[in-house]
Amino acid sequence: MTVLLGAAYYAEYHPHDRIETDLDLMQQAGFTVIRVGESVWSTWEPRDGEFDLEWLLPVLDGAHRRGIAVVLGTPTYAVPPWLQQAYPEIAARSADGRAVPWGGRQEVDYSHPAFRFHAERVIRAVVGRYAEHPAVIGYQVDNEPGLLLFHNHGAFTRFVRRLKQQYGDVETLNREWGLTYWSHRLADWSELWRPEGNTLPQYDLAWRRYQADLTTEFIAWQADLVREYAMPEQFVTTCISYPRPAADDRALAAVLDVTAGNPYYAMQDHLDATQDRAALTAWTTSGVAGLFRQADRLWSSRQEQFLVTETNAQSIDGSSENRPPWPGQLRQAAFALISRGARMIEYWHWHSLPYGTETYWGGVLPHSLRPGRVYEEIAGIGATLKDLDLEGFEPDADVALLWSNDSHWALQFFPPLSGQDDSYERIFDSYHRGVVDAGAQARILHLAQARSAGARELARRYPVVIAPALYVATDAELELLRDYAAAGGHLVIGIRTGYGDHEARARVAVAPAFLHEAAGVRYEEFTNVDEPVPVTASIPLRENAHATAWIDGLIPEGAETLVSYAHPELGRFPAVVTREHGAGRVTTVGTVPDPALAASVVGWAVPATVADQFAPERSLPVTVTSGRRGDGSRVWFLLNWSGSEVTVKTADGESITLEKWGVRVIEG
Amino acid sequence: MTVLLGAAYYAEYHPHDRIETDLDLMQQAGFTVIRVGESVWSTWEPRDGEFDLEWLLPVLDGAHRRGIAVVLGTPTYAVPPWLQQAYPEIAARSADGRAVPWGGRQEVDYSHPAFRFHAERVIRAVVGRYAEHPAVIGYQVDNEPGLLLFHNHGAFTRFVRRLKQQYGDVETLNREWGLTYWSHRLADWSELWRPEGNTLPQYDLAWRRYQADLTTEFIAWQADLVREYAMPEQFVTTCISYPRPAADDRALAAVLDVTAGNPYYAMQDHLDATQDRAALTAWTTSGVAGLFRQADRLWSSRQEQFLVTETNAQSIDGSSENRPPWPGQLRQAAFALISRGARMIEYWHWHSLPYGTETYWGGVLPHSLRPGRVYEEIAGIGATLKDLDLEGFEPDADVALLWSNDSHWALQFFPPLSGQDDSYERIFDSYHRGVVDAGAQARILHLAQARSAGARELARRYPVVIAPALYVATDAELELLRDYAAAGGHLVIGIRTGYGDHEARARVAVAPAFLHEAAGVRYEEFTNVDEPVPVTASIPLRENAHATAWIDGLIPEGAETLVSYAHPELGRFPAVVTREHGAGRVTTVGTVPDPALAASVVGWAVPATVADQFAPERSLPVTVTSGRRGDGSRVWFLLNWSGSEVTVKTADGESITLEKWGVRVIEG
Amino acid sequence: MTVLLGAAYYAEYHPHDRIETDLDLMQQAGFTVIRVGESVWSTWEPRDGEFDLEWLLPVLDGAHRRGIAVVLGTPTYAVPPWLQQAYPEIAARSADGRAVPWGGRQEVDYSHPAFRFHAERVIRAVVGRYAEHPAVIGYQVDNEPGLLLFHNHGAFTRFVRRLKQQYGDVETLNREWGLTYWSHRLADWSELWRPEGNTLPQYDLAWRRYQADLTTEFIAWQADLVREYAMPEQFVTTCISYPRPAADDRALAAVLDVTAGNPYYAMQDHLDATQDRAALTAWTTSGVAGLFRQADRLWSSRQEQFLVTETNAQSIDGSSENRPPWPGQLRQAAFALISRGARMIEYWHWHSLPYGTETYWGGVLPHSLRPGRVYEEIAGIGATLKDLDLEGFEPDADVALLWSNDSHWALQFFPPLSGQDDSYERIFDSYHRGVVDAGAQARILHLAQARSAGARELARRYPVVIAPALYVATDAELELLRDYAAAGGHLVIGIRTGYGDHEARARVAVAPAFLHEAAGVRYEEFTNVDEPVPVTASIPLRENAHATAWIDGLIPEGAETLVSYAHPELGRFPAVVTREHGAGRVTTVGTVPDPALAASVVGWAVPATVADQFAPERSLPVTVTSGRRGDGSRVWFLLNWSGSEVTVKTADGESITLEKWGVRVIEG
Repeated sequence: MTVLLGAAYYAEYHPHDRIETDLDLMQQAGFTVIRVGESVWSTWEPRDGEFDLEWLLPVLDGAHRRGIAVVLGTPTYAVPPWLQQAYPEIAARSADGRAVPWGGRQEVDYSHPAFRFHAERVIRAVVGRYAEHPAVIGYQVDNEPGLLLFHNHGAFTRFVRRLKQQYGDVETLNREWGLTYWSHRLADWSELWRPEGNTLPQYDLAWRRYQADLTTEFIAWQADLVREYAMPEQFVTTCISYPRPAADDRALAAVLDVTAGNPYYAMQDHLDATQDRAALTAWTTSGVAGLFRQADRLWSSRQEQFLVTETNAQSIDGSSENRPPWPGQLRQAAFALISRGARMIEYWHWHSLPYGTETYWGGVLPHSLRPGRVYEEIAGIGATLKDLDLEGFEPDADVALLWSNDSHWALQFFPPLSGQDDSYERIFDSYHRGVVDAGAQARILHLAQARSAGARELARRYPVVIAPALYVATDAELELLRDYAAAGGHLVIGIRTGYGDHEARARVAVAPAFLHEAAGVRYEEFTNVDEPVPVTASIPLRENAHATAWIDGLIPEGAETLVSYAHPELGRFPAVVTREHGAGRVTTVGTVPDPALAASVVGWAVPATVADQFAPERSLPVTVTSGRRGDGSRVWFLLNWSGSEVTVKTADGESITLEKWGVRVIEG
Repeated sequence: MTVLLGAAYYAEYHPHDRIETDLDLMQQAGFTVIRVGESVWSTWEPRDGEFDLEWLLPVLDGAHRRGIAVVLGTPTYAVPPWLQQAYPEIAARSADGRAVPWGGRQEVDYSHPAFRFHAERVIRAVVGRYAEHPAVIGYQVDNEPGLLLFHNHGAFTRFVRRLKQQYGDVETLNREWGLTYWSHRLADWSELWRPEGNTLPQYDLAWRRYQADLTTEFIAWQADLVREYAMPEQFVTTCISYPRPAADDRALAAVLDVTAGNPYYAMQDHLDATQDRAALTAWTTSGVAGLFRQADRLWSSRQEQFLVTETNAQSIDGSSENRPPWPGQLRQAAFALISRGARMIEYWHWHSLPYGTETYWGGVLPHSLRPGRVYEEIAGIGATLKDLDLEGFEPDADVALLWSNDSHWALQFFPPLSGQDDSYERIFDSYHRGVVDAGAQARILHLAQARSAGARELARRYPVVIAPALYVATDAELELLRDYAAAGGHLVIGIRTGYGDHEARARVAVAPAFLHEAAGVRYEEFTNVDEPVPVTASIPLRENAHATAWIDGLIPEGAETLVSYAHPELGRFPAVVTREHGAGRVTTVGTVPDPALAASVVGWAVPATVADQFAPERSLPVTVTSGRRGDGSRVWFLLNWSGSEVTVKTADGESITLEKWGVRVIEG
Repeated sequence: MTVLLGAAYYAEYHPHDRIETDLDLMQQAGFTVIRVGESVWSTWEPRDGEFDLEWLLPVLDGAHRRGIAVVLGTPTYAVPPWLQQAYPEIAARSADGRAVPWGGRQEVDYSHPAFRFHAERVIRAVVGRYAEHPAVIGYQVDNEPGLLLFHNHGAFTRFVRRLKQQYGDVETLNREWGLTYWSHRLADWSELWRPEGNTLPQYDLAWRRYQADLTTEFIAWQADLVREYAMPEQFVTTCISYPRPAADDRALAAVLDVTAGNPYYAMQDHLDATQDRAALTAWTTSGVAGLFRQADRLWSSRQEQFLVTETNAQSIDGSSENRPPWPGQLRQAAFALISRGARMIEYWHWHSLPYGTETYWGGVLPHSLRPGRVYEEIAGIGATLKDLDLEGFEPDADVALLWSNDSHWALQFFPPLSGQDDSYERIFDSYHRGVVDAGAQARILHLAQARSAGARELARRYPVVIAPALYVATDAELELLRDYAAAGGHLVIGIRTGYGDHEARARVAVAPAFLHEAAGVRYEEFTNVDEPVPVTASIPLRENAHATAWIDGLIPEGAETLVSYAHPELGRFPAVVTREHGAGRVTTVGTVPDPALAASVVGWAVPATVADQFAPERSLPVTVTSGRRGDGSRVWFLLNWSGSEVTVKTADGESITLEKWGVRVIEG
């Protein structure tokens, strides 16, 4: 299998017919795929019930003639004016009851039947028309769903009905949510307050789960519609934007045939591993680990190879955020994603647009539409990919990290950390960064996937499992973690793990619940800290290691101290402790480790990484990532995340020189 | 009289019956009081008109058996869902007309008759049921009232009627408020605009006074209802949160039997007198002086001993603001409050809660409900209190500071200082901090209390009176200040004092009005300053003293210059001047003094403090506060506000060593 | 012609009659003009249709007796309560549909007929009453119009009609605005979405142009009404606040007889040329160049002398922004404005007000109303002006800068630069600052004025023309720039010039469009930069010169490089290039130059300034500005923008010493 290369292609946006020119240029650049059609419902159906379906044919025919495959989108994320005008009730409502105004896209409550009626009609028309076209290899239904929480009357009414079904009677809800508190006891379901004023974390978690389910249900409904028409070899997917508030990536991917997602990331010096720079937006990552993390999360949704449906062609984001890549970085990012499991790299998008919201979301071609530097670089990637076969590729993993969407949502409502960051991501990312900085490779596992595997299988596959901020967890899930260690695994517990239950209630139990005995440590207090706290350790410690943001007041009861705080008051607590448990071990980290501390802990827990087999002495700014093909052979990806040439010595004593922002793919 | 010690106790929040266990633990910790019942209207009255009153009985009986007294709350601050649902019109409206959404507490316009009807019924039921229970020593009506300004139609309508009653006719209002300006002249009362768009300070001051009166009237109404049932020895109070926007503490306390309030404060290094840290919230203080100031304001409301109905047990505030005390600080804070007049210390709250908004407002017990470090520390306080009798205690005062709620409100609308701070508090607090840093003790006097005393009595009781930012003041009040100096007092005037009148109008008069002749100084211009301005002085000046934020262009006309600005342009004005007046003196401070300058000015004005009698050579981080019992004997409180041991030498030549965060109570 | 000196005068705001006192004081200070009556509709017409017109007579009579001229205002900017009450539909609506609340001024949609009906009646009454009074020299209609964009139903409806008229049919609009994008194609005009949700720059530009036209139409309507009554020698104007979002100064000035405007500026160290300080507000400038720029923009509206209807008397802005001038600065600012074309300096305002929103907008008199320092300084200006004749004065100009309101609006919607600044102003101002810092003088030309002149005439009058950020420009306008260079001018192109078209669409063309061949340079990418980038150059470079904010990836095709970036990645592009074109030259600046770089480029382009004739060796903090009177004679204005005395050597070898903040006017 060759990795697909291509771009989103909007021929219809351009007043003059450039289709043949564009497709010729794509072919010359080694493109093998394009995505089409998902943004223009008002072109497919210019007036209520009047369809115009033929305009796309030249694109599909032209692509097919050149051996370029096509992913066909359903156009439901951008509602046409005639529909907005006739049914204003489909406008999504914010928490305060206001309609999200028309004028962009993704403004509707897609759980609303008036929207569904029209969406079904246009999906049937478009997919019905082109399903048999030989260029079409698959479908993208909708686009980056889950942008908004729908506070519409219908959506809220169904939320109450769902609670009624889940809890049976209000007394049960009163008890489970603790509604005695602040006089919130309900006498009847009709008394439930709306989310706008809600201050209770139990309510909010139910609301977030419900909203994510609305998205899953919507995508499943579209997928089923499309499957009525699709050929057997065609896949159905949607493109997931992982930061969307109303999306559960695992649930979404489960109703689709393949995971597809849109990893956007900051380029330029944000990809320089010798620098630390803040993220530019909430939906882009900064840094090398951040880019890998996006790929690892894409893999995690189905634990298999995935499609990159959109990623930076050059600048992305608004008119004042132009940050095109330094020469070489596009190639670098493509192979980073591929090394962690991507089997398609599709840029967003082919042209730069003369008008519209995304005028400065740069395309492969600049506004002049004359091929330039970016086009040439992507053509270079195309040339390399032509000869790279990654059939059955599975990335290597030294460490598994447990992910929990429930915990993420709960800690968005009740963040443990001060400041602007997303607490859950900050805690989780600190460990993922530690893995990357330690030269290891990470597998991200949804908690439910770990549960399916069971403790023994988990211990067999992953020598180290890190459980950061698993705040929302059932008793059984916490027992699983404990049993994983007993079965021989090395469990690393981060803060907030074992503190909450499935309702995001603080557990009335010694913390960390279900784990404190195995861990040989408990705590009864914790503190936020404004300034990083320096640490000392009995394990090898990277320079300048610090505890940040939060400190659990760990009280060892049998555990051995590995890391200590250098602080006049907090020094009475250890920072990291460890204890053997059964055939394995539990290590407890009582703080949010900074990169140096995280890499130190991971480095101690993973004494030999897979990549050590290739180049045992490497270090950042070089990363070595790897995986095995279906035939068992390994592929190594060497990347130089810096503006200076570097040389890597391999296990075989060979010296490999990487130019600045350089890439080397070595098939084993 | 022993100082009461206890906590707010919500047995009803816990699914399992722990009452006996909890009360035993309390008894062992020396608890003598609990507060109960004020948060759970929906438990008292689960459905409209159906009451369930018996659940509290085991708590009262159990407490009584253990000699623990009970403060019983009326549950009106948290409206039950059935009431919200039936009468949405009781929801408070914000300035923009939107209803405050349900889902927390304190969302209602408590001046609304539909609310009052139901509130009266539940108050009569609860108080009627338990008034005769021997454990009950008093009542708390409602809880921290005055959170919101009510922009409801009824409340606005009554505001217009009140103006009509006050001003008689629109022509008078037009004249008094200067409504010719910007074409605001009214031809009829019905033309008055709503507060949302108001830009006039005169209107706003009337609105703020009205809103505070709504709160006072509501609390007085509740108190009268409760008194229909209360036993003669039972008191009625409410717990005042001093930062509430719609509360006039003096007026509130006047309709109650005792002042009660909720001083929350930042702990950890915020209580380290060797550091300066910004406040964490608008409702907590930072710093040693800030903690004392909360106590001094509590004393000021009625000029007598007060109850602390709530204060930090450990962390307070949301999930990302966990900052439990360093060991020793709880004890320290308790005795600081007691030394300034507290006769009850009641922690908020006993348990930590597994659910609800305040999950991370920590209790005496942690989430596990097993007694831990905090419990042990509080038990230590209980042991000390058992033997301390403070009958008739009155704290000492070297200096009186004048407080004006009117000025506070006026300067919130038209703040003189740039930045986020509350201007009035910043100016006022700079002097209070100066008093503490100078080793003196402060009495805070409401302007109305000073007026009642009269100039001569004021001069007799307070050798120094500081009048910071008295922007809203009648002619008579400004004359009182002048006459106080003439009668032998030393009057210190801060900025903005004597600039406005009772309508918050800038006076058409030479500034400071009524005072410039006595002060021997006037000004016609003033400037904000972004950077602190260094000063020089002819009085002893603490290191690094600066003028901050504001500089009056003082023009001496007979006054002597004490402090001068070191500034190329502002150096033409003096910073602090003084002049003898009658039997006393007026000192004018033309800027907001930083702590060093404020302490220098206070130190000069108060050459010998009360505490000098005990330990003449002490200095921060040690404070010595004191007072006299009814029998005239003095009690000294030594506190070490630092993380290092310190030794204090007393007037008797004795050396007292205080451990870090240490406390010593010495009965004279 | 003597320059007029005076103030806005609101006798009616004061409860006690001070008219004779005030006018005597004005006369003594050399006042020759006052502005009256524009703020008090509710005084002119206290009740619907009842007029009270006589109250102003004593002011006009008293002024006339003392030789003080009067500008009479129409009172339409402040709507009386009775009108607000009866017709709430005239309240302006914000984008979200909410009515702007009453309580300040300028809250109405002045395009609404219910407002117009009443406005016409009061204008006719007031102007009809006083047009023949001999004191009246002119009229100000309304006041600082264009504060709000009106989202009222009527205004939006007329917007749609206007589009229909402009574009003819929806298909044309779909094509011109690119509405295929994101499914925005309209099938009918009724489907157009409202501005609230709009995300398209083409829509926004049309909306901004429409809103500015509403303002022009309103002012023209008032001017026509007034002209029905005005004497032939009386002028009609309005006072323009240039930062208003809904005002096109050139269009406004075109329907009036003279330009009048309100330059407010930060004083104190903000006028110190040795310091760089951020602007205090969006409507005041900071710095010496900023003050000159306000004057240059006033000149630009009609390319002729202008009136300053309002400017700082002392502090302006709210209660926490008191920043009165250092002694000397008022005089300095007055002569700076005069040197660039002001023929009236009218302070806002005479009294300081005891009440109302603007209590701390200081007047010539302080709150005490006793003349003080500010009065004395202004009297000094009056004394100087008495002897200065500036008949037919035209300021000198070394460089012309092209201004485009369309580009300003377009770049407010789609700002190229990150951060809080207004991108267009930041780019434009960087060049204007460069002109001032280089010791040159600037003429600002509206693009339409340049178009009227034509390329040849432009080249004749201006040896150097700078075109910064001309993002919105027609093909013809870009050709004009090119032809100007061909005709012998030196064209300097800034970033974003030649990138957009008249619909604010990015041009599908090699950038800079129409100019890249003449310029010998093109680019296909650009980047924002967070940190200033140092530069090196082959032209004389001021110390510490940097590129900031934005860098075009310039690719020279025939141009010579003048300035280069010192940057590991961006160093591959030149920063400034130049190329001879026809009889002239095109220089391209690919970045936003900081002051040092801008002054270097201007200094290179303007080797000899007009002011060099007077004092060839001067430099900041001294500025020399100049102009010619109608008789051809020159007047030089020397200003010392610093707190230290400086000496200037003239071309004649004379030494002139300027005291701190000093002024010298020298008639040639």
